[in-house]
Order: sequence, then structure tokens, then C-alpha cells
Amino acid sequence: MTSEIILFGVGAMGQRIARLARLRGYTIRAAIDMDPAKQGIPLGRLANWQGLESGPAVTADVTKALDGAPATVLHATASFLRDVSSEIECCLQHGHDVISISEEMTVPHAADPAIAARLDATAKQYGARVIGTGVNPGFAMDMLVLALSVPCGHVDHIQAVRTNDLSDFGPTVLRTQGVGLTPQGFADAVAQGSVVGHVGFAQSIALIARHLGWTVDSVTETREPIISSVVRETPHMTIAPGQVAGCRHCAFAHINGREVLRLEHPQQIRPELEGQATSDQIRITGDQVIEMQITPEIGGGGGTAAAAVNALAYLRSAPAGLVHLTDLPLTSPKMTTLIPQGDHS
Amino acid sequence: MTSEIILFGVGAMGQRIARLARLRGYTIRAAIDMDPAKQGIPLGRLANWQGLESGPAVTADVTKALDGAPATVLHATASFLRDVSSEIECCLQHGHDVISISEEMTVPHAADPAIAARLDATAKQYGARVIGTGVNPGFAMDMLVLALSVPCGHVDHIQAVRTNDLSDFGPTVLRTQGVGLTPQGFADAVAQGSVVGHVGFAQSIALIARHLGWTVDSVTETREPIISSVVRETPHMTIAPGQVAGCRHCAFAHINGREVLRLEHPQQIRPELEGQATSDQIRITGDQVIEMQITPEIGGGGGTAAAAVNALAYLRSAPAGLVHLTDLPLTSPKMTTLIPQGDHS
Repeated sequence: MTSEIILFGVGAMGQRIARLARLRGYTIRAAIDMDPAKQGIPLGRLANWQGLESGPAVTADVTKALDGAPATVLHATASFLRDVSSEIECCLQHGHDVISISEEMTVPHAADPAIAARLDATAKQYGARVIGTGVNPGFAMDMLVLALSVPCGHVDHIQAVRTNDLSDFGPTVLRTQGVGLTPQGFADAVAQGSVVGHVGFAQSIALIARHLGWTVDSVTETREPIISSVVRETPHMTIAPGQVAGCRHCAFAHINGREVLRLEHPQQIRPELEGQATSDQIRITGDQVIEMQITPEIGGGGGTAAAAVNALAYLRSAPAGLVHLTDLPLTSPKMTTLIPQGDHS
Repeated sequence: MTSEIILFGVGAMGQRIARLARLRGYTIRAAIDMDPAKQGIPLGRLANWQGLESGPAVTADVTKALDGAPATVLHATASFLRDVSSEIECCLQHGHDVISISEEMTVPHAADPAIAARLDATAKQYGARVIGTGVNPGFAMDMLVLALSVPCGHVDHIQAVRTNDLSDFGPTVLRTQGVGLTPQGFADAVAQGSVVGHVGFAQSIALIARHLGWTVDSVTETREPIISSVVRETPHMTIAPGQVAGCRHCAFAHINGREVLRLEHPQQIRPELEGQATSDQIRITGDQVIEMQITPEIGGGGGTAAAAVNALAYLRSAPAGLVHLTDLPLTSPKMTTLIPQGDHS
């Protein structure tokens, strides 16, 4: 529990990770961020913890921040492998283990096999480990599915539905889901690639298939607008009836022409205004049928920060190289002392 | 997937394990059972699979059955550590790995630290591995709890409730739950130890506490009668209003005087006659609240057979000695080819 941490990325997620890691007794020895506005600011002030001036000063000097004895880098900068791979490689070359919340890092092979192979080779060369984790991908639609498969003699079909609420998110995220567009504008934006929906289905499918020994031969995806019939308002946006409240992104995996996996992820603002509860639902059909429901859904932001910090206690026991969540025991929170109630960040 | 299996115990559960292992492509090379009525009967006939005369003949000659190259013993004879430890030790001394569904084997230390230490030492001496698994203990009230803790920054309290239906069970099991007694008879039977309730709470608590890094300082248990207000009838027993339909067995674990874990397991016949749905429910309270429900509950018999067969693909990668489920990756079913639909045993 005394491992030292280097934080790479101190945005909203990096700050959550910083608060939790500190609460859990880890020492953060450096904090990296490229944002000029954050340079020199103590991490304590940025992440708003007690002792505001404590913690390392945020720096853009990556080499200096990565100097020193092997530590674990908690990496939280971007979603796509192409945007994060050089950052992660640099950490590995300094001999540090890396835990990344980049969505595509949960199974980088599913995004780019060449980059994944290079990360694996670099990690092995420098005796370090690298893993990607988070709530989605990394838990709600893949690891939790695999957990529920443990009492199954075989699995014929899996359905996972995650219904969440985007109301807390700002314009950048809402734009990627098409919120506020007309139905025609949504269709155009999907065609142009500016409405992307969820990032991570390829990783969830790969994580499940790899662990069950499945060879998936085709994956199809759909992105449909969730059209509101009422006014929906958030601090960041108001939409009128007939406008798009979010994106229903689905992925379907097939083996020999038969659908074996169906992932459905409707993301929208204010779902409760049309009676839509948020939840995680999983249905496994095989020698038994397991129908699971979690209401409301598992928190994405806090859950992802927790998944990253929890992995600290497990990653070091893995062999050097690219590690997947399915290689490790369950990365539950290791707490040698109970955190006092009320001291929840 | 080509490991050879030796079956130790060919009762109802051993037969389920045999059918599933065969369906999954494993070779069963010997079958041990002490029951004189089963001697010499081909396993195929006993377990009622196609090719009734195929499979090894059941034998009580343990030494002969355990002879040969290292294999994995699937062990299904009894619930309590004191009744199974010498059987398991004998398998280990022949160099075989052992997967047991004995409830107390999921965490044998919680039943008897001396026996657990001896099993660990014997396994290490002979280069073998031994693990206990099943649905409860082993999944519904412990491993699934730990899976749900992965997105939690810390855990303050855990509640797991498993509501199941005993209607399929015969008089032996029903007696251990007090079914058919008067409320006074139930109280007397609990005091005398003939109504035991569930076997495995100590193991579930130990599995959770060990993995979360908790040091539990006290555990209390209650066994209360579920008194029927209606007539409840099964093929094996009929009870009148006012009689006991089952046992509500609960366990409570504390740290520093505060309850941190509550396990509730009401087991009864015909719960639906009083509007009681069967289910597995878990509630984790910490930095987020996770409320999970599975309805109906995960099948105990089929689920336990699956958990045992699924462990085959994972146990061999563990170091020699006593292994716990929390040491392994998720033991999901590894299926290199999909089992054709309709061929479900």
C-alpha cells in the first residue's frame, strides 16, 4: 500500500483519481499535465483536498516527472489509443508500471494490433506492466458479464444494457452524443463521424470473447437518435420536443452467423423526464438464464477512478508486459484500515 | 482442454459434474464412490448420458483409481472439512490437483486452521493445487460481492440476501433446515444442533474479508424459523399453517463493533405460495451505493457443477498449494467451440 504514484493527466478524472489515491494512503510524487493554465499549481489545490497547497506541483516536463525509482503511473488523458500510446510508452521506458483509463487501453489489440504489440514489447523490455481499466469498458458491460458467467456451464447469448444519464456532462461530451441535434442532423453527424456514441464496445467484446474462448467473426454497430418528446434541460443545454436527447449506441457480435453478444448503451440527458430509469442490466442465456439488474447504474466517473486506484494492489504481481483485467484476480479495493465514515471524497 | 479428470463422489452433484465435464470435452478416467450399490456401474449409465455403458466403472478402490499420471480430481462427497480432508489429502499425495465443492473447502482456514495448513503443506510437497468452489459459498454471497466492489473506492457495508426454494430437495436436506417442525421444535433443534441452516457463512465472510483487507473481529449468527401461514406441499413433504417452511439463517460480521457485512439466507419450500420471489440481492454501501438484483436466484446445483468444471481451465496456472477463488482470474467457462444449442445436459 506504500507504492508511489505519478499522475499523468490532471483533468476532471485525474483529479478524482488523485483524491481517492490520497485517501487510500498512496503517495503522489509527481503530476503531469500539458494544460498551460495548470502549470505549477499544487495538486492539492487543483484537486481541492484538505491542505490545498500540498502535493506535487503540476508540470508539463514529462521527463523530469518520470525520473526516479519505478513507480506506478495513473494515466488519464484521452480515450483513443493513437492519442495515448506515445505517452504510455514513455512511462514504460522509464520503468514505471502504467494503469490507464483510456477506453481503448482495456484491450488495445481491438483498436490497433501493431500499437498493442509495441506497448507489450516495450513493457517487457523495461520490466514494467501496463493495463487499462474503468467502468465502461472495463466493468459494467464486460468484467461484470464475465463474473456472472462463472456459474454457467456454457453461454449461448449475452445481452448487456447500460442506461445512463449525461446531464452532468458539458458541451464537449454532449456533442459526441448528438444532444440537441435534429434527427436529420444526427444522421448526418453519424455519417460524418462527429457523433461517435460510446468508445469501448470493441474492447468489451474482445475482453468477453477472449476470456470465454470465443472467436467472434463479425461485429455490427448501430447509432440511433433518442428523440425527446418533452423539453429536457440541464445546466449545459436545453432541448425541445423533437430534438435529440442522446444516442442509443448498440453493438452485436456474431459467431457463425449467430448473434452471441448484444451490447446496448442508450446515453441521454434527463432520461427520468420520460420515465426511463438508469440501470445496468445483464442477461446471460446458457444452461441457466441469469438476469441481473443494478438500479441506478454504476457511477461511471467515481467507478472509473476507483477501478484505477484499486488496480494498484494487483498489477505488480502480474508478469511484465501488456496485462488485461481478465488476467488478474478481481481488483477489489484493498483496505488495510477502514476509511472513517464521513471522510468520503 | 484435454486434462483428464478423476471423479471423487458420484452422488447427485457428482453426476451433474460428470455430465457437464463430458459435454465440455474433458475425459473422465476414473470414478470413485463408496456406495456399495454403485460399484461397477459405468459412469455413463449412472449419470444418464448418451452411450449409457461408456465411461469408467464406479469403484471404491481409491488407490487404484488415483493411480497414474497427474490429473484433476473433481471432488463432491460432503460439506464439512473434517469429513473430506483425508480424501483430499490422499488425492494430493498422488500428485493430482483437486477441485472440491465441499462448502468448507472454499476457505478451509475458516473451518479448521490446522487442517487447512496441512492441506496446503501436502499440496506443496507433491506439487499439486487444491481449491474449493461452488455457488454458495463461492459465488452468490462472496465472489459476486467482490466483483461488485471493483468500481468502489471503499466499502463501508455489504448486505447479501439469497432467497431460494428447497422444494426439489428430499427429506435429508429439509430436516437440516427444520422444515415441518413446530416453532418450538425448531428452537429445540437449533439448540441441539440438528437444524444447522446454511453451511458456508464462515467461508463467505473469510473470502470477502481476506480480499478487501478487512480484519473482522466478531461474527454473530441467527437461525429463525420461517413459519408458514398456508399449506405448502412438495413431492417430499406437506406442511400445515403454523408449521416451519424453512430456516432464515443470517450472519453478521463486525469491525470495531460496527457491522460491516450482513448475509441473509432464507431457505424454504414453496416460497411463491406467500408471494416470496426467489432472488440474489447485494447492496454495497461505500463511496457509491450499488444495488444488484438477480431474479430468480442463481441455480445452486447446476451453478455449483459449472463452477467446478470451469475451474479446470484456471487451477493449473496457480502455484502449488491451497488456492482460493480470490487468487484466480474469474473462472468463466472456457469454450473453444460453442456447444450446439439443444445439447444442454
